[in-house]
Amino acid sequence: MLSESRIVHYFQKQFPSCIGDDAAVLPFSENESYIITKDLLVEDLHFRRKYTDAASLAHKALHVNLSDLAAMGAMPKYVLLGISIPEHDANYINEFLKCFAEVCKHCGVVLIGGDTTKSPNKLFISITAIGTAANNHIKYRNNAAIGDLICVAGDLGYAHLGLTLLERNIPGFNQFKEKCLKPIARINEGIWFGKEFAVTAMMDISDGCYIDLKRLCESSHTLAQVNLDSLEPTQEFISVCEKLGLDPLMTELTGGEDYGLIMTIKPHDYPTISSKFLEHFGYKLKVIGKMMEGEGINFIKNGIHKTLELQPFSHFGEL
Amino acid sequence: MLSESRIVHYFQKQFPSCIGDDAAVLPFSENESYIITKDLLVEDLHFRRKYTDAASLAHKALHVNLSDLAAMGAMPKYVLLGISIPEHDANYINEFLKCFAEVCKHCGVVLIGGDTTKSPNKLFISITAIGTAANNHIKYRNNAAIGDLICVAGDLGYAHLGLTLLERNIPGFNQFKEKCLKPIARINEGIWFGKEFAVTAMMDISDGCYIDLKRLCESSHTLAQVNLDSLEPTQEFISVCEKLGLDPLMTELTGGEDYGLIMTIKPHDYPTISSKFLEHFGYKLKVIGKMMEGEGINFIKNGIHKTLELQPFSHFGEL
Repeated sequence: MLSESRIVHYFQKQFPSCIGDDAAVLPFSENESYIITKDLLVEDLHFRRKYTDAASLAHKALHVNLSDLAAMGAMPKYVLLGISIPEHDANYINEFLKCFAEVCKHCGVVLIGGDTTKSPNKLFISITAIGTAANNHIKYRNNAAIGDLICVAGDLGYAHLGLTLLERNIPGFNQFKEKCLKPIARINEGIWFGKEFAVTAMMDISDGCYIDLKRLCESSHTLAQVNLDSLEPTQEFISVCEKLGLDPLMTELTGGEDYGLIMTIKPHDYPTISSKFLEHFGYKLKVIGKMMEGEGINFIKNGIHKTLELQPFSHFGEL
Repeated sequence: MLSESRIVHYFQKQFPSCIGDDAAVLPFSENESYIITKDLLVEDLHFRRKYTDAASLAHKALHVNLSDLAAMGAMPKYVLLGISIPEHDANYINEFLKCFAEVCKHCGVVLIGGDTTKSPNKLFISITAIGTAANNHIKYRNNAAIGDLICVAGDLGYAHLGLTLLERNIPGFNQFKEKCLKPIARINEGIWFGKEFAVTAMMDISDGCYIDLKRLCESSHTLAQVNLDSLEPTQEFISVCEKLGLDPLMTELTGGEDYGLIMTIKPHDYPTISSKFLEHFGYKLKVIGKMMEGEGINFIKNGIHKTLELQPFSHFGEL
């Protein structure tokens, strides 16, 4: 059963109704719950020290966890840091720990515990992040309904371009590299969407829009019809894709680690929500499709069904 | 700052009053709190696959975390499993996952989430365990008072003998090896002590009685006077120590991974508590010393001060 999805399915069978969202929910009063998530970052799988300075790693380690809380509509509060440290390069680790404390404070998160050990050779980081949310503001993956619009807050594919540029050691294009090295969890957006009852389901985009949307569909028992015309890459995005030999549309659909939010919204409420969103956050909430009866994902372009051969981005640390 | 204690001190300064116990406390009502802990297990530092079968590893991975909850007087409830998996030996990992689900169920713990990734070569396990406790039953390290008796529930040094036997590949002596391979968190004892108001401070013994008691003294601003006459090793323990060239007293004081509980108790209440304990759990609660004014630990034997050259057991995964 050695793939992440098979392991998750196995544990879901063993512990029904307990896993499957971005984070777990622990009730603590009639009105509120703790939201708790755990993410691992492994050296040379999720990051390489040669192009990831300690400050970027500290930022990313926290933000990928906070993104899971954002996906549930939770306000981040606490964090536990587990770290297994190889013997070499004490300066890097010291800098990481200092920056981790800083980024926690910057995000209003209190470090409440953790564990430190040696590591045989690679740096391992394991973070547990805890937030709080009003019970009626928590968003799950399983509540999308037929007819709901599928919306995305954030750019698609940018982090994958950044990663490719970094891996190929191509200079410049820092705005893309930054998206890979220092993704910003959409904490305020998550909390904001949490309060909107017309937002029916939500998750973050960590493994790529296509694969994450597919998971949302599986949970909600719906089919996503994605309108390819809505994925309008910028000229700059297209030209970097060309330089790297990547297909822009494929990169948008399958590139991972963008940490945007994907959600479903009742169509009647979309106009109000999107204009309030633009006013509040200064960027557009994109509609990329709608939920229909069925399962999986299909695509339309210019109103006509289109078949895509998608090779979902396999995260280099993904099992 | 690359030692565990220096890292903890650094983060304690950055996030005052938030770290230092076996687990962190998250209030969830006027009367109750969640207790949360996180421990890492790294292959070839904390365990070796050549002598640790998947069932033992699953058991140990959970119990070392539950021991932290026991140390606070908490009832274990939930767990999150993070696992980074090397490519080889899928059977071992499948067996580990199956056994982990079983041991969770056996301990009444629900798996609520986690993360899985690849690993470059070693197996990494990162567990977050969550329990609950009535606020007035939670035990901390910092509440021992001068005059309190220092008590131990559990054997000292047995796991270290087991580890030494396993590392040297010596056959037999399974009762010692078992203590290393499958330590049992004293969950019921922890909850029971939590309800006893005369128990003033408590922690688990993971790194060895000497070093852990020293930490308790630091938190409580007391000095521990340990009576060496109270550490009466059995004849069997002595003979295994002799076989291995280990000093029995040193092994009891510095051997790690026993996962017993160490606590301080008001002397007036000790007789009642110890007889109730014996009746309830079927083994003796040992008094090994008392708290005095000062700091650190000193030793007496036959009523006379004794200087010991202790080399605290350095856990082979400890930073």
